[in-house]
Amino acid sequence: MLNAPWLFERAAVTPDRAALHVDGATLRFGALALRVRHLAAALRARGVRCGDVVAVLLENELRFVEILHALDACGATLLPLNVRLSPRELCFQLGDSGARLLLHGSEALAETAAVTARMAPGVERVSADALDDTTAPIHLEPLAPRAGTAAPLAILYTSGTTGRPRGACLSRDNFLWSAVSASMHLGVHRDDHWLACLPLFHVGGLSILLRGVLCGTSTLLHRRFDADAVNRSIDTERVTHVSLTATMLQRVLEARGGRDAPAHLRCALIGGGPCSREIFERARARRFPIALTYGLTEAASQVATRPACEEGGPDAGLTPLLGTELRIVDARGAPVPTGVEGEIWVKSPSVMSGYIREPEGEGTSLRDGWLRTGDMGALDAEGRLRVFDRRSDLIISGGENVYPAEVEAALREHPAIADVGVTGVDDDEYGRRPAAWWVPRPGADAPSARELRAFCRERLAGYKVPLAFYRATSLPRNAAGKLQRHRLLEMQHDDHGANE
Amino acid sequence: MLNAPWLFERAAVTPDRAALHVDGATLRFGALALRVRHLAAALRARGVRCGDVVAVLLENELRFVEILHALDACGATLLPLNVRLSPRELCFQLGDSGARLLLHGSEALAETAAVTARMAPGVERVSADALDDTTAPIHLEPLAPRAGTAAPLAILYTSGTTGRPRGACLSRDNFLWSAVSASMHLGVHRDDHWLACLPLFHVGGLSILLRGVLCGTSTLLHRRFDADAVNRSIDTERVTHVSLTATMLQRVLEARGGRDAPAHLRCALIGGGPCSREIFERARARRFPIALTYGLTEAASQVATRPACEEGGPDAGLTPLLGTELRIVDARGAPVPTGVEGEIWVKSPSVMSGYIREPEGEGTSLRDGWLRTGDMGALDAEGRLRVFDRRSDLIISGGENVYPAEVEAALREHPAIADVGVTGVDDDEYGRRPAAWWVPRPGADAPSARELRAFCRERLAGYKVPLAFYRATSLPRNAAGKLQRHRLLEMQHDDHGANE
Repeated sequence: MLNAPWLFERAAVTPDRAALHVDGATLRFGALALRVRHLAAALRARGVRCGDVVAVLLENELRFVEILHALDACGATLLPLNVRLSPRELCFQLGDSGARLLLHGSEALAETAAVTARMAPGVERVSADALDDTTAPIHLEPLAPRAGTAAPLAILYTSGTTGRPRGACLSRDNFLWSAVSASMHLGVHRDDHWLACLPLFHVGGLSILLRGVLCGTSTLLHRRFDADAVNRSIDTERVTHVSLTATMLQRVLEARGGRDAPAHLRCALIGGGPCSREIFERARARRFPIALTYGLTEAASQVATRPACEEGGPDAGLTPLLGTELRIVDARGAPVPTGVEGEIWVKSPSVMSGYIREPEGEGTSLRDGWLRTGDMGALDAEGRLRVFDRRSDLIISGGENVYPAEVEAALREHPAIADVGVTGVDDDEYGRRPAAWWVPRPGADAPSARELRAFCRERLAGYKVPLAFYRATSLPRNAAGKLQRHRLLEMQHDDHGANE
Repeated sequence: MLNAPWLFERAAVTPDRAALHVDGATLRFGALALRVRHLAAALRARGVRCGDVVAVLLENELRFVEILHALDACGATLLPLNVRLSPRELCFQLGDSGARLLLHGSEALAETAAVTARMAPGVERVSADALDDTTAPIHLEPLAPRAGTAAPLAILYTSGTTGRPRGACLSRDNFLWSAVSASMHLGVHRDDHWLACLPLFHVGGLSILLRGVLCGTSTLLHRRFDADAVNRSIDTERVTHVSLTATMLQRVLEARGGRDAPAHLRCALIGGGPCSREIFERARARRFPIALTYGLTEAASQVATRPACEEGGPDAGLTPLLGTELRIVDARGAPVPTGVEGEIWVKSPSVMSGYIREPEGEGTSLRDGWLRTGDMGALDAEGRLRVFDRRSDLIISGGENVYPAEVEAALREHPAIADVGVTGVDDDEYGRRPAAWWVPRPGADAPSARELRAFCRERLAGYKVPLAFYRATSLPRNAAGKLQRHRLLEMQHDDHGANE
């Protein structure tokens, strides 16, 4: 379905509509497609063939968008690299995916690429800006059609908050269904204008671009997340949709002071992890139209989303997208009754075919087409999903389940706490106990461990109260803003931290 | 993609949204799905199996909608029959499609079905109302999945304005892409409420239902077209979209007098043939948001549509839907330059796999995936389509092309003419000449043939002016309101008609 490169399909039908606003300039679909035809020809001249994997180390910039579509035109696979990774981590992804060409950005990214390429023999390194745009443009006819190939549109390595990074192979049909079902879910208006400040190397950013092309709506691209820039765009650039993590949302709210969101902002899609009640309520008070979503790289982004127009707080259920089946299972993979908590399994046309190089059989990520997410949740009687936490983060303490996100949400309500992370520490008596790392809010009086414990006890069952509270200057987060709880234990905690 | 029955997929994610308003009642997706599960079980109990063709002779009523989805659940194919056809014509479609079960409505339709069934041995006739709804509901698991079957979702016989009716085999993917691309084209809002007064046995009506289910939006079903009822619904039932033929639009405008359309009406989709400038301008003056469309049964409805928000008169180009390629070719099938007129060819994921029982090879309706429409048009530099006329209606007179629609549009501007049809008559000198059949507007003074000729001559080139003008009390139109020009010659024309 829709086998030709999507940008070319779109440019054929609405060449004059705005496609992309970036660095103060506007590109229409027709003009963007022409640039991409030149670039695709240049890539083919460099030897890129149908089925090849091409790595991209770029920030959110026009060149990234062009390369995405040029690779689609060539029938090649995009490997978008996280710009914050170390050369050693990048090298792993290049080797694991079989990429032979690395297109990189300038300055620090060029240096990173140079170091990486030295560690990865056989990988050619090319500055993305140096690609020759004057090559005669490529036309559809000489291209091998994608239909016959099994080459994914993109391979995305999952964020790696747990274990070894794995490359999720996402096909054009995965992204197509993701865009279609998300559009049916949230609606499509002619004037939709989506602000992309999530990294394009994560599925949340990438899917904004692809939805825009399929729907014929425009995207406003920010090179990287900047709370003030987001506020300026929301207020003055007619942004209708923005995708943010909860942490980004918090920073946006803090940066904009008391101003309400403008009426033209119709949807702030909040994903990448749980959103605390405090942030949720603050956003609602500032008239941010919050749509909470549960998404996965392995499902090409959204799995279940509560549209902004629907009632309910941060804990209310999320509606699965059309075509998405959800199942909650116990440790043996057997479905549990409605309302009972278990592991979330997902089946959808947007779910990947698998991780690259994953051996088949039991114990794999997919079973009979069901993606075993490792996340914990429950379904209500209407089939809506409540997500509790990532299973890998789950702290089982004396037989009781403790969800770090819940403890963090409680502590985040403390006026002297700016940020907080919770993970499990070994405990002789209970097996595991939660411990908290917290960042003080500047200017506030730092509370003692005793005060924090009492603060938690007011809000949480006793077994959920952290055993220890460590003060820190910042917390480990990945490029998408997701807290990396497994790294909390590695942190040097502040000497002033209380520990008992 | 989306292999489970669509209504069940929809009911799983948004059971509480309104699906259908019919006969003053509202059905939600969950309740409709439950009814359909019962009905599907009853159909299976009657022997309906995956791949079977089941004929339906019903007006626009709840039972039609239920049967549509119940057949989808059974993996069977819907053959929707035009309720205005004669038993002989119905019998042809039953035999041609291989249908063995005929589900029919009450009263006149029951009588028609009885006569038809007597002519079609081997076809079982069952009153749709008599199907047992108390059969235990069907569940997904015991159903053969549709994915593996090549059974079309529906077979629709083309309107038969030319030649022998042919059954277009439309797959689930055809309708899915039609719904997706139409939604991307016109947008989807949460409160969309589409008035379906086109017959459900035509693709324009059927596609409203399927779009609604896929998008999770509601449909208002009218049993048949009634201009006053349409106006009442538009004014008082929060209708946002309505699909009409130009003739229906004209009647709606006449029936509503001077009232403007309400602001909540966002789209009046006008298809099924050309729309005259006069009707177009009158509709715009009454604030009807006109979206002109060129659609085909063989392409599961819309091919190219100009959204209401875009500028341009009735002759301005129509934008193809995403994924739809258009080609204009000459008589030998070779593409013609931009702006040059030729036959319209269409390639799209929504185009049928072929007509039932059509032999393969040259001369078939499809060539290399291109649907040869038989319609005449041209593409402008931006790729927008102008449709001139149906090729089969084309009158070649003295080597010049005469398009009946153009001549009709001119005559329709005459204040004494209520309706008009033009077709070709044999002529010794020119081969063919246009002739006009016209219906006088009540109360107006009937013009003479001489006056009409002079009226045309002011507006048209000489070779386009009809040779003769026949007065008639009504014109032959099919159930979709499409003028059947080939039947004009068979008409008994009024004795008062002028003929020279």
